[in-house]
Amino acid sequence: MYGAGDVRVQEVPDATIREPTDALVRVTRACICGSDLWPYKTMEASSEGARMGHEFIGVVQDVGASVAAVKCGDVVVAPFVYSDGTCQFCAEGLQTSCTAGGFWGTPGVDGGQGEAVRIPQADGTLVVLPVGEDDALMPSLLTLSDVFATGHHAARGARVREGGTVAVVGDGAVGLCGVMAAKRLGAEQIIILGRHQDRTDLAQAFGATDVVAERGPEAVERVLELTGGVGVHSVLECVGMEDAFTTAVKIARPGGAVGRVGVPQYPALPAARDTFLRNVTVSGGIAPARAYIPELLPDVLEGLLEPGRVFDRVVDLDGVPDGYRAMDDRESIKVMVRP
Amino acid sequence: MYGAGDVRVQEVPDATIREPTDALVRVTRACICGSDLWPYKTMEASSEGARMGHEFIGVVQDVGASVAAVKCGDVVVAPFVYSDGTCQFCAEGLQTSCTAGGFWGTPGVDGGQGEAVRIPQADGTLVVLPVGEDDALMPSLLTLSDVFATGHHAARGARVREGGTVAVVGDGAVGLCGVMAAKRLGAEQIIILGRHQDRTDLAQAFGATDVVAERGPEAVERVLELTGGVGVHSVLECVGMEDAFTTAVKIARPGGAVGRVGVPQYPALPAARDTFLRNVTVSGGIAPARAYIPELLPDVLEGLLEPGRVFDRVVDLDGVPDGYRAMDDRESIKVMVRP
Repeated sequence: MYGAGDVRVQEVPDATIREPTDALVRVTRACICGSDLWPYKTMEASSEGARMGHEFIGVVQDVGASVAAVKCGDVVVAPFVYSDGTCQFCAEGLQTSCTAGGFWGTPGVDGGQGEAVRIPQADGTLVVLPVGEDDALMPSLLTLSDVFATGHHAARGARVREGGTVAVVGDGAVGLCGVMAAKRLGAEQIIILGRHQDRTDLAQAFGATDVVAERGPEAVERVLELTGGVGVHSVLECVGMEDAFTTAVKIARPGGAVGRVGVPQYPALPAARDTFLRNVTVSGGIAPARAYIPELLPDVLEGLLEPGRVFDRVVDLDGVPDGYRAMDDRESIKVMVRP
Repeated sequence: MYGAGDVRVQEVPDATIREPTDALVRVTRACICGSDLWPYKTMEASSEGARMGHEFIGVVQDVGASVAAVKCGDVVVAPFVYSDGTCQFCAEGLQTSCTAGGFWGTPGVDGGQGEAVRIPQADGTLVVLPVGEDDALMPSLLTLSDVFATGHHAARGARVREGGTVAVVGDGAVGLCGVMAAKRLGAEQIIILGRHQDRTDLAQAFGATDVVAERGPEAVERVLELTGGVGVHSVLECVGMEDAFTTAVKIARPGGAVGRVGVPQYPALPAARDTFLRNVTVSGGIAPARAYIPELLPDVLEGLLEPGRVFDRVVDLDGVPDGYRAMDDRESIKVMVRP
């Protein structure tokens, strides 16, 4: 990406092993993330550009001398942050704060929207999938890389519990996966806040019990109506805009929690006093997908959950620029890339 | 209180039973709260004035027809919010959001800094103490009304756990009680941030392992030094100023939590992005003291904990105005009132 709206498909030097802890992965599936749309909307023009893509599945082609957990030929999923698996934060399940970790597409690190990726800290990062590279489950398995794990993180941050009431702010792919995660954790009532019927239909297929198409104060009023006037125990904030956060706080029940996973496009959290007076907890953040993959994988492998239904378009590498456009125009919920 | 700095001791009509759910309590111990200092500093002049005091112990003098849980002669402690004990929020242990509850000293409701108080919702509000009205444990029992319960709430909000690392921002009575609560919950390292040696000495007596007298960026640096560069699992924010909150976030370890109990004197929570990137949870709020009294009372009755050591001055009713002054001037940590 060279600037807002400027995505180019280019030849770059082949990815290779550089460190003994590296692996080389040929990408078989990747995708475009809602968070990729922030730079797509706002990035200043740059002559160097940035590698893009942080969600991918691929086949291991080569491994460094010290790599032990994966071998050539393994089909693997990469979480959206690489991590060594051994530091104190990895040990606590917060691989996004790994002291040796980092983000795909940063300087010197490949992006997932390409043919191949050098994987730093391969042992800590990759998870081997017990399927062939073209398995029918690929769309759902790919969501473990970020979007389903992030929806799950929102649900965890919002302390979704058996029998609880939940609202999901945002009907993007993360919000939809948040609905599925809340359902999986036993929520009884799941209200999706969204205005796009194709998306809210999918939310209902994923377990949403109510749809609120209103926004702002009207949305708050409607959620209160649906919850006996008190709001929900758990709010999954899957947008990242200040308005969405404000709505999230207002529809949280006293003693409830907001799990934020929309990358915040605001400097301060409003309602410092309202959250205090009603004991509303604000939690969430960047999802440690690597921690959640082992928990979520079995349900996907058994076909109990199909988060891959958030993909409604598939492109090849040459189709990536138009994929960004389609997601930005809301023509597509989420675009899969098959290099 | 008739305005900033203007506290008067006046005759008012005797408190009486008005509702069948009321009790009448003769106050035997009350105190001045750090939160009373906010109006003491800032209240606009008022001809009506406001009743003050929300922490007290007393003896039941009369009960309404439907009161069953307390009887005349009982020594009782009142939490700083009254509550019916039966609504959905009371059932969840969040009595501060009771649908029939409210605050002492609001219009039509007595304050605790007086001779007697009408107790609305007596059955849900009062807790009977198995001691005489002049028991030596009175100072510590009185802290259950607010200050120790609030310190405990900060520790709960900050998710203090066995073996965890903790920092307490603020060396007022709540912060000191927060140290004690963190110790009680098994914290291994407890860092108190405070500049008043008499207070930090007491913090150490209560279980603090380290004292940081610096403020702002220097305090952050010092806490990071004391914690291997990563910060603490749990931060108890016991001040309520924006600077204190900012410090709290910066000294929280990735994946850590800030338990806020200082009444927020700021409209928005700074560091929306920093808390997100490091998965720092912001929790806390008004402490449901009523929920915590049964949990904390046994340790106080057995003499295992002495939170009453935060009281360093005792006044009679006529001494209340000077008690405010002494706390505001930081001559006194916390003032007890013996009517």
